[in-house]
Amino acid sequence: MRTLYHHWLYPGARLARLVLGEKGLDAELRVVTPWQRDESFLALNPSGEVPVLMEPDGSVVAGAYAVGEYLDEVHTDPPLLGADPLSRAEVRRLTAWFGEVFRRDVTEPLAGEKLLNRIMGGGAPDSRALRAGRTNIHIHLDYIAWLTQSNRFLTGPRPTLADLMAGAHLSLVDYAGDVPWEDHPAAKEWYMLLKCRPCFRSLLADQEPGLRPAPHYANLDF
Amino acid sequence: MRTLYHHWLYPGARLARLVLGEKGLDAELRVVTPWQRDESFLALNPSGEVPVLMEPDGSVVAGAYAVGEYLDEVHTDPPLLGADPLSRAEVRRLTAWFGEVFRRDVTEPLAGEKLLNRIMGGGAPDSRALRAGRTNIHIHLDYIAWLTQSNRFLTGPRPTLADLMAGAHLSLVDYAGDVPWEDHPAAKEWYMLLKCRPCFRSLLADQEPGLRPAPHYANLDF
Repeated sequence: MRTLYHHWLYPGARLARLVLGEKGLDAELRVVTPWQRDESFLALNPSGEVPVLMEPDGSVVAGAYAVGEYLDEVHTDPPLLGADPLSRAEVRRLTAWFGEVFRRDVTEPLAGEKLLNRIMGGGAPDSRALRAGRTNIHIHLDYIAWLTQSNRFLTGPRPTLADLMAGAHLSLVDYAGDVPWEDHPAAKEWYMLLKCRPCFRSLLADQEPGLRPAPHYANLDF
Repeated sequence: MRTLYHHWLYPGARLARLVLGEKGLDAELRVVTPWQRDESFLALNPSGEVPVLMEPDGSVVAGAYAVGEYLDEVHTDPPLLGADPLSRAEVRRLTAWFGEVFRRDVTEPLAGEKLLNRIMGGGAPDSRALRAGRTNIHIHLDYIAWLTQSNRFLTGPRPTLADLMAGAHLSLVDYAGDVPWEDHPAAKEWYMLLKCRPCFRSLLADQEPGLRPAPHYANLDF
């Protein structure tokens, strides 16, 4: 059996779950707490980060970038990167946009402060970070609206790694109740399409004891 | 003619220069200052970051991840990612290690504080950041030594995208004079091999007026 080492609060590990889901691949999910040093896990991935994928033969693939590309190379149906080098470049640009820029601008100041920081036993959320995240998110939701003007998904009629990376991050911010969907109907429509996909089911079932999601988090019609 | 929009202080743009060099591809280099908002450049890459590659037909590829993968797909000789999916996964894991973990642990606290911050007109370097960077770098140089125990380069007998990403970052920290090479002979030997490659020549010629590199920066025998 394939094993995915993950933690629900890590966007890269959420991406790996979404890619497995889109590809129709089963995996046993094992929870790792990356902020607690675990020597046996560090032997699998020296950075200590999730996701780490272990194939049935014991081969190990570590990190969101490596796992996404690897699964798309080995399990080609459906393709998640695009049909030609320039299309793949555009998918990779947007995957990095959500994985790096959105992360810094929105996920860390909002979900990082409200969820991860709390689970790690940190203090109250930093109100300046929350304010910054709540301002920044509008630019990103406008950008999603702009990208999906003539397409159902970010780069075309089918979701790619870029949509899944965006969904991995936005679903965490949505868990914290911090996505102003009502101000962004086009982004909401795109997210609704993504949320209805079978690959999203496992993410929508995430529930941390003592840290309940926003009431609409798992609703497909929100 | 191919054009690369870059800035010498951005590791991702240094990576793009190294990949072009390894592939033997010419490109006109155009300098962009990513911290100054330039509308015409934002039209090419909404994140405002370098590198951005423009092909002779006007096609645009933006971001270090997309540019590295794109150039390796379109110009396959020499291959920079590996021959099979698991080898490529290992190259991508290490590329992300240097691009994300090394960046956070070493490049930002050292080169970021001493070089980029100064050019952007910031104040004196944060001494706590410098101390952290100078402690962290030992772990990374030890890791390079461990990885190159049985290979000339990080994942095998030839350099890959991972070596180039590591070199893109380390060369900046070396410009600032903050790599303790004498304590790490194995890492030094690996860097010497990399530094001697023709692709490195353009990086070693980097000279910012008023911000001189460490005396050994461009020496092949340092």
